[in-house]
Amino acid sequence: MFAAEKGLEIDVIKVDIHAGENRSQPFLGLNPTGTTPVLVLENGFAISETIAICEYLEGVYPDNPLVGFVPQERAEALMWWRRVDLQVVQPMTAGFRAAEGIEMFRDRVRCIPKAAEEFKLTAQEGYAWIDGQLQGREYLAGDRLTVGDILLFCFIEFGSLVGQAPNATLPNIQAWLARMKARPSALLSWLE
Amino acid sequence: MFAAEKGLEIDVIKVDIHAGENRSQPFLGLNPTGTTPVLVLENGFAISETIAICEYLEGVYPDNPLVGFVPQERAEALMWWRRVDLQVVQPMTAGFRAAEGIEMFRDRVRCIPKAAEEFKLTAQEGYAWIDGQLQGREYLAGDRLTVGDILLFCFIEFGSLVGQAPNATLPNIQAWLARMKARPSALLSWLE
Repeated sequence: MFAAEKGLEIDVIKVDIHAGENRSQPFLGLNPTGTTPVLVLENGFAISETIAICEYLEGVYPDNPLVGFVPQERAEALMWWRRVDLQVVQPMTAGFRAAEGIEMFRDRVRCIPKAAEEFKLTAQEGYAWIDGQLQGREYLAGDRLTVGDILLFCFIEFGSLVGQAPNATLPNIQAWLARMKARPSALLSWLE
Repeated sequence: MFAAEKGLEIDVIKVDIHAGENRSQPFLGLNPTGTTPVLVLENGFAISETIAICEYLEGVYPDNPLVGFVPQERAEALMWWRRVDLQVVQPMTAGFRAAEGIEMFRDRVRCIPKAAEEFKLTAQEGYAWIDGQLQGREYLAGDRLTVGDILLFCFIEFGSLVGQAPNATLPNIQAWLARMKARPSALLSWLE
């Protein structure tokens, strides 16, 4: 979605994460943590971790900025990215791995089933906090779309598939979500 | 430590986190998550989240780069920062809040005491993974010090105070730690 918002087309090689292709060679040679996605540059250098990939694309293709190039604007975007990460994404994914995703993840990373409900509650509390912050704002960082909006949107899409959607009564998140869904990038047709 | 490595001196206003000064006004007006540190710019704009502060300082004071200015180098530094964050810092601090730190944190954030040991084990497994990655390397990103080294060092310092030091038998982390401790920035005398 970040690439689509920047107007980029990237060759995509699908990795079968259900079959564990990402947890064995040759994938581990690209990323020793075994996580996706990985961006492989033409010189062979492999970038993993989504925020590092986004920052790379931002630096090389400055059009349609989603982080920014003025230090204060960059900081504001990264601050919001981090808040979404800590308040929603980390607890949501920990909750998923500990419950619905346990069969896939139990032999891959340390999962904590007995904490699943607390993880999910933490993510819900994160949604509520963000809802308050979105009061009067079009996007997290104000009137411009930034990388944190994309992170939040993608994980709401995921959360909606696994019982961790934001509460329908959160008015600001729901209005923001409608704006995000209306963006052509949200269709992700470039990944199909 | 990031500022010290860049040769910057920043006016420091101490916030009494034990007394909860960061969880009440006026601090919450600077950062609605109630976490420290916050960097307040001369125009009043307040940046929270450590990585956003570091990126701001990097952009405004480019000397002694700790992230970088070439996109591939920036991506490599941010990738390592993120790996340290996910594999060590997040589980370590969750483990601390859930156990030794519970009295301070129970009314501030959702703590999960029953998961404390698993959080700590996850951080120890993170250390072991990083130890393997440091084989043959001076720093995480190779021969240059970057923001991920500073993050790891500072949280090893913290972890060492709360029973979450890396195992003394991890040879590469211990050699790297000795190199880090020898840096003048590690003394943090500028904060005293």
